[in-house]
Amino acid sequence: MLPFARVTVIGLGLIGSSLLRAIRAEMPTVRLTGHDASAEVRDIARHLDLADDITDTVGAAVTDADLVILCVPVRAMGDVAEAMRDDLPGEAIVSDVGSCKAEILAALTAALPGQAIVPAHPVAGTENSGPESGFASLFKGRWCIVTPPADADSTAVERVSELWRRIGANVERMDAAHHDLVLAVTSHLPHLIAYTIVGTASDLEDVTRSEVIKYSAGGFRDFTRIAASDPTMWRDVFLSNKDAVLEMLQRFSEDLSALQRAIRWNDGDALFNLFTRTRAIRRSIIEEGQDDPAPDFGRTHS
Amino acid sequence: MLPFARVTVIGLGLIGSSLLRAIRAEMPTVRLTGHDASAEVRDIARHLDLADDITDTVGAAVTDADLVILCVPVRAMGDVAEAMRDDLPGEAIVSDVGSCKAEILAALTAALPGQAIVPAHPVAGTENSGPESGFASLFKGRWCIVTPPADADSTAVERVSELWRRIGANVERMDAAHHDLVLAVTSHLPHLIAYTIVGTASDLEDVTRSEVIKYSAGGFRDFTRIAASDPTMWRDVFLSNKDAVLEMLQRFSEDLSALQRAIRWNDGDALFNLFTRTRAIRRSIIEEGQDDPAPDFGRTHS
Repeated sequence: MLPFARVTVIGLGLIGSSLLRAIRAEMPTVRLTGHDASAEVRDIARHLDLADDITDTVGAAVTDADLVILCVPVRAMGDVAEAMRDDLPGEAIVSDVGSCKAEILAALTAALPGQAIVPAHPVAGTENSGPESGFASLFKGRWCIVTPPADADSTAVERVSELWRRIGANVERMDAAHHDLVLAVTSHLPHLIAYTIVGTASDLEDVTRSEVIKYSAGGFRDFTRIAASDPTMWRDVFLSNKDAVLEMLQRFSEDLSALQRAIRWNDGDALFNLFTRTRAIRRSIIEEGQDDPAPDFGRTHS
Repeated sequence: MLPFARVTVIGLGLIGSSLLRAIRAEMPTVRLTGHDASAEVRDIARHLDLADDITDTVGAAVTDADLVILCVPVRAMGDVAEAMRDDLPGEAIVSDVGSCKAEILAALTAALPGQAIVPAHPVAGTENSGPESGFASLFKGRWCIVTPPADADSTAVERVSELWRRIGANVERMDAAHHDLVLAVTSHLPHLIAYTIVGTASDLEDVTRSEVIKYSAGGFRDFTRIAASDPTMWRDVFLSNKDAVLEMLQRFSEDLSALQRAIRWNDGDALFNLFTRTRAIRRSIIEEGQDDPAPDFGRTHS
């Protein structure tokens, strides 16, 4: 029994296009509809045959859907919800894949009063963007966090969860506020730090940009990957999850100051103890199947 | 014509053992000798057949070498040099693979007056440690920075450079102080930041350790890789390259404060502009062959 018969995906970037590919691969009889605000992206999506129908308007995309999944930048969610309101069937479930759940839940609820809303966040991605970058196995073995409002219909929550399980994800339920705190640590802060250090390095006057690039294999290149993620998406994430991000940033800055002090005062033991502790975290991530055990992420050494 | 006939490697961890493997693969007639301070590591090295001879003492290892390469933690270099002084042939060249060159050059020069010293730093590695972790292709396509003193014998510099080229590295020459500044940005600061953020995440009381691990695919896991590097090695690096590291840390902190302010005041344009700029750096690193173009570092998506 399929959880949904007609699924519409709005926003055909890395996540939206991967979702269409994954649903088609695992549930080929589901009728798929897609829409993107960009005419160029819609053309590419048609060329790639990502859905049964790629529509030119949001309204046409949702008109007979029983599930609509919004895959647009966090701060565009509210406007897209408004735009589809008049054409959305009353019994359709609305979901999304955004990285900050509290603000999105509020925006969708305000735009679509009375509609069943079940936000979700697949913790998966790559540094690439756009419809060509997606692939069907992106969500396999990754977590998808479902964050329904407290009064959500349990059947609606279960149907959305089942869709994600069918395409290979492990589903976990969380309230939106706790989700935003957890992701502030495991995703938003790392991106913010990576963007900052790549910016710092490219601004130095004593070290040329070409030297930074040339010797990046010493560690820097690991940071550049996530600092290559979509700028619009991440701008929205930081503004939307502002409080949790600022709180985590404050803690990080305090810890960094403590380390700075340890270096200044030659406190080798403090450094050694931290560096030993952090090693154990890596081991746990690998043991739980959340990263590749191959050294250097499995990069090829030709 | 081989640059050296008898090479000794002191310290048989990731880099030392990779060096032995690479030299044997590319120059099989070179006679290889190895030594490590740990009896356990020496046993493993013998079992892995990493060299023609694994000696129990530093002295025995260097007695007939024409090149000795020290692959020990930065702050152990001086003591190892002292320990081999009495047995080192006068015409042998001494080199090393440490990540901070100014302090090492000073320590080796003080311990071995009159000896030809040609420090070098291969910008390569993985998060794994120990003799089992090494592999022959580690240096292929990576840069090796040679930092001889101003008055170094040019033949000695060329011979050391040629050894690295033979095992696949691209060789660049730099003075020790500039090397230390460049690597503070491209390697030392990234490691420090990664260690800090992994520490911060594991200290939170509102987010459990298991949540951090579970949802690490959102970006955090990229940081855990380099925060799993050898604690002794990195303690020494930060203490040895203290001034450059503190300078870079100061700049990073200023940039982070600016970003923090942009988030607090909802300055989306400032965020968007930085995030667009950093994306270009990633592209350059890939164009210059310093990282894998495959998305997500080429991690396998099963």
